[in-house]
Amino acid sequence: MPSTNGTNAVQKSSSWGAIPTSDMARRTFNPIRDILTRPVRPLASPKSSKDLLSLSIGDPTVFGNFKAHPVVAEAVEEAAASYRFNGYPPSVGLAHVREAIANKYTHPDAPLTANDVVMTSGCSGAVEMAISVLCGAGKNILLPRPGFCLYNTIAGSHNVEARLYNLVAEKNWEADIEHMESLIDENTGAILINNPSNPCGSNYTKAHLRAILAVCERHRVPLISDEIYADMVFSGQTFTSTAWLTATVPILTLGGLAKQWLVPGWRIGWILIHDRANAFEHVRQGLVALSTIINGPCALVQAAIPKIFAKVPDTYLPELNRQLESNARILETEINNIPGLNVITPQGAMYVMVKIDLAAFAGITSDADFCHKLKWEESVEILPGECFSYPGTVRLVITPPHDILRAASARISAFCQRHRK
Amino acid sequence: MPSTNGTNAVQKSSSWGAIPTSDMARRTFNPIRDILTRPVRPLASPKSSKDLLSLSIGDPTVFGNFKAHPVVAEAVEEAAASYRFNGYPPSVGLAHVREAIANKYTHPDAPLTANDVVMTSGCSGAVEMAISVLCGAGKNILLPRPGFCLYNTIAGSHNVEARLYNLVAEKNWEADIEHMESLIDENTGAILINNPSNPCGSNYTKAHLRAILAVCERHRVPLISDEIYADMVFSGQTFTSTAWLTATVPILTLGGLAKQWLVPGWRIGWILIHDRANAFEHVRQGLVALSTIINGPCALVQAAIPKIFAKVPDTYLPELNRQLESNARILETEINNIPGLNVITPQGAMYVMVKIDLAAFAGITSDADFCHKLKWEESVEILPGECFSYPGTVRLVITPPHDILRAASARISAFCQRHRK
Ligand SMILES: Cc1ncc(COP(=O)(O)O)c(C=O)c1O
Ligand SMILES: Cc1ncc(COP(=O)(O)O)c(C=O)c1O
Repeated sequence: MPSTNGTNAVQKSSSWGAIPTSDMARRTFNPIRDILTRPVRPLASPKSSKDLLSLSIGDPTVFGNFKAHPVVAEAVEEAAASYRFNGYPPSVGLAHVREAIANKYTHPDAPLTANDVVMTSGCSGAVEMAISVLCGAGKNILLPRPGFCLYNTIAGSHNVEARLYNLVAEKNWEADIEHMESLIDENTGAILINNPSNPCGSNYTKAHLRAILAVCERHRVPLISDEIYADMVFSGQTFTSTAWLTATVPILTLGGLAKQWLVPGWRIGWILIHDRANAFEHVRQGLVALSTIINGPCALVQAAIPKIFAKVPDTYLPELNRQLESNARILETEINNIPGLNVITPQGAMYVMVKIDLAAFAGITSDADFCHKLKWEESVEILPGECFSYPGTVRLVITPPHDILRAASARISAFCQRHRK
Repeated sequence: MPSTNGTNAVQKSSSWGAIPTSDMARRTFNPIRDILTRPVRPLASPKSSKDLLSLSIGDPTVFGNFKAHPVVAEAVEEAAASYRFNGYPPSVGLAHVREAIANKYTHPDAPLTANDVVMTSGCSGAVEMAISVLCGAGKNILLPRPGFCLYNTIAGSHNVEARLYNLVAEKNWEADIEHMESLIDENTGAILINNPSNPCGSNYTKAHLRAILAVCERHRVPLISDEIYADMVFSGQTFTSTAWLTATVPILTLGGLAKQWLVPGWRIGWILIHDRANAFEHVRQGLVALSTIINGPCALVQAAIPKIFAKVPDTYLPELNRQLESNARILETEINNIPGLNVITPQGAMYVMVKIDLAAFAGITSDADFCHKLKWEESVEILPGECFSYPGTVRLVITPPHDILRAASARISAFCQRHRK
């Protein structure tokens, strides 16, 4: 195209200083990104020339061993071919899709209708809406430590103080209830739990969930229950949705297609509003208002949901869980064979947490240092506990194929051997 | 499923008061929603039993006369069938897609590379990110009056003061440059323009865009140029992207698939970063940080973009514009035949603004009152200028089929006849 800027081309360009950004942009900080991109300092040992094995990002689709069920793709292809979902959806989501979600997740003790469902851009979008409707500048939110770092990023972005309650590794990562309770004050906007958990791989008992609900009840603090790994538990475990256990505590339950249906790139999530004490009238209005800003997630993928729920066979989820468990067990066995490392047995989700006995190693100063040197020397990428506010551990993703899990374990073993005191 | 809430069922549910929402949720206010749902007060005239004709919402797909090109659906079906885009995309968007967008919108005077593109959840998501990266609490932003109400909603949501500069209907809706300039102070984070315009249907000349750029230049204020209706102009008009006209002013140009490709429900937009004065280093970082919150729009639709750009034939856009123009002319002719109503001829986009001479009608107190009574008596829905901060007008969408445009015009004519002084 011809030049059109004529006269302007002669303007001086030197005098635009750096344009400042908003406080929000400056406060929006993602620790994983920061840690993964932190420069690796020069090491004595040479950089590995091996292929990178990545056990760092919770994306089950990258290796091809975990694949969406064919119905899932078909459902979206049908929606596209129908031309019926090209127009704007309602900002809270298509009515028949919200109804399908309500029907799937309703429970005799926690009934849901389409009106209780708000569609979001991924479960990430659900986390953002839930936090931003309940909390704002001057408020605080209770978040798990260790916990998914996006919670902290979003709290920071909205100028909400993150107060981290401890999870106890020795007790299947149950929350330290006393500690949790001690963090609550009159500015606490919500308690957030994540069950099953990223990064812990834990699955809470009913008794423990009741103990958390009792804290909410005593202090009249609503709960955000991030259940993006709902139903993804291993043999002997039963998943309980927190909302089933209370007739009073107002709960926003968060979910999505990403993990169970293996399509994290499709960016579909939802909020289920449980409000049997009728305390969420303003919160409902707030969620509707916030949804009008970006007007919901992709209508094509929304429209695929009823078929996905109806037509993915019942055998799919048990098989997925069986595969995940078999992967977890392989990794656990291999890693537990390495002196200085200790796997905390997971009960569900897609991760294992590993304790590092730093005293067993020479010149490894922290979990982040462990991960950096491991990546440099052995081309294995895992995340330091620091990403989850929980130093002294590392998190491994269990979704790679068996041969990669074994190869990564062997490299970690060689690395630990080399650095042993 | 069996009851699981056992003990909790006996807890009293009476004592949870209403949970308050955040300031952000309370500040997030959508005037269209408010006006459309405001109760219609009882009228002398009986409610119409006719079918509702909706000329209110800017969704070109609702009547079936404007349909996405088959390539558009095919491209998304292919992406789904490939299983290659089920995983997480980078938060700023898939690299090859950002490259395709850069290649489509690059210009000799405003070159773009993939690094200058950030994918967003609809152009709405682009507006939110652009405003929230450049402005925050305590800042102000200059917005057009009349203008797309989402700008005000988002500014309000982020506690940014909206300062409205006047557009002059008599001068093809050009900005009143003096008025614009008078609103700028040291807290002005950005000037936003929308070209072609919703609701005005205007398309700015190069000279006018240069005059706006000169204001930015003089005050060192960056520009947000919402070009969601880029290239959608009528015969005799040429669309100019603002960025082509400056070698200095830092600009965030906003776009998306919604309008030109007739898939608003797919929720894909983008920000093009034009920064030839190197003033946007922090802004780039801020956009990346903000993008990590919801991690980009649907990867399947992202992946469809290169094919959509490459394979939708060159004849598609002129044909779309021809149809839009023919619709606009029908509506203009019909409405201008109604005494008391006056169409301001549109030059592009999907809307016509109509001035109402309220003095010509009995008992019609405002544009909102006009719209309410029209809907009640004639079942025609149009939007009052109040939605766009511009009372005394109404906005009609031009995308319905000719017969509906004619039927709606006839009903509006009957309505005006009945209420004429
Ligand atoms: C605990 C938890 N919550 C939310 C999310 C975000 O899910 P989505 O990809 O649907 O945004 C993740 C993703 O890893 C997660 O682990
Ligand atoms: C001027 C303007 N900007 C942005 C948008 C939002 O576009 P999208 O549907 O892609 O979010 C619209 C939609 O009507 C619009 O008219």
